[in-house]
Amino acid sequence: MKQISVQTTQRECLIDITSKVSEVVRSIDKTNGICIVFVPHTTAGITINENADPDVKKDIRDTLSRLIPKGANYRHLEGNADSHVKASLVGASVTIMVENKNLMLGTWQGIQFCEFDGPRNRSVLISVF
Amino acid sequence: MKQISVQTTQRECLIDITSKVSEVVRSIDKTNGICIVFVPHTTAGITINENADPDVKKDIRDTLSRLIPKGANYRHLEGNADSHVKASLVGASVTIMVENKNLMLGTWQGIQFCEFDGPRNRSVLISVF
Amino acid sequence: MKQISVQTTQRECLIDITSKVSEVVRSIDKTNGICIVFVPHTTAGITINENADPDVKKDIRDTLSRLIPKGANYRHLEGNADSHVKASLVGASVTIMVENKNLMLGTWQGIQFCEFDGPRNRSVLISVF
Repeated sequence: MKQISVQTTQRECLIDITSKVSEVVRSIDKTNGICIVFVPHTTAGITINENADPDVKKDIRDTLSRLIPKGANYRHLEGNADSHVKASLVGASVTIMVENKNLMLGTWQGIQFCEFDGPRNRSVLISVF
Repeated sequence: MKQISVQTTQRECLIDITSKVSEVVRSIDKTNGICIVFVPHTTAGITINENADPDVKKDIRDTLSRLIPKGANYRHLEGNADSHVKASLVGASVTIMVENKNLMLGTWQGIQFCEFDGPRNRSVLISVF
Repeated sequence: MKQISVQTTQRECLIDITSKVSEVVRSIDKTNGICIVFVPHTTAGITINENADPDVKKDIRDTLSRLIPKGANYRHLEGNADSHVKASLVGASVTIMVENKNLMLGTWQGIQFCEFDGPRNRSVLISVF
């Protein structure tokens, strides 16, 4: 298991970490298997989506914020209840097949770290089995 | 593969099952790997989120109910169409790394069984690979 | 790793691929393990939900379209920003345990390919570990 850091720059943003994950996968002594990318936080998540047009990441962020606005009558009093809900909808991990040390992503797919309560310095755990 | 039971007490609620899953993981004869926790139901799900403040679980439940209300013009006539939609958004499984028989969860993370059509006696499947 | 094709027939629809996935799992030379079903697209996803009443699939589709309508002030200008958001909420993969070459799905569970920008000819990747 390896760990990487992700510095986020806004309260809510998606950050492409595909190249960082690929680098870790190439450094691990396994040729084929599955890669698990896991976010050990409760106000951040991870998803697979388009990287080519950065507007897709903004649309995902903004749509989640429209559906689950910050500060809208939640019980949890830390001001980030919305962040927790968003994290559960997006999910804490992604699973990707690995062949010949390559992530088997589709043409347009990238691995997107989803910050919902930043900016913060976050961790991501990566393993290949 | 092991199976545990979860008795839910309301139509919609999140129940922390982290300690139950940890106990199963310690009982399995594997030291390192990945743990899959799978819900074999279509009106329940599973997520990873905060356990420290129980209000977070209520906020997740209530936000999903606001977005996907019970009985709002669905086609499925069993009165639990909303439960099915919620189950697909939250997901049927979580994947967690295991090191030295410990679940590699973040400080605030717990495994939350999500009941969307209870109260019922539910099953959860657990494996370590 | 094996690949199957799914021909979708509408812009948005859920298509049950359980029997196709089962067939692949039976053809792979592994008796027990976990099956990963992965969608290498950014405007489609995959979920596990009821197959018995086809209305459940329509309710999932229609609820997502109500929450995330097509063409509602998105930045991404290809007309499918909603499809990308839906794909991230549903997720790009499902994980299912395998015992004696059987998918360990619950009684009502089926594997549903989720098309959000069709109709198209899509691919699905399947592996057992």
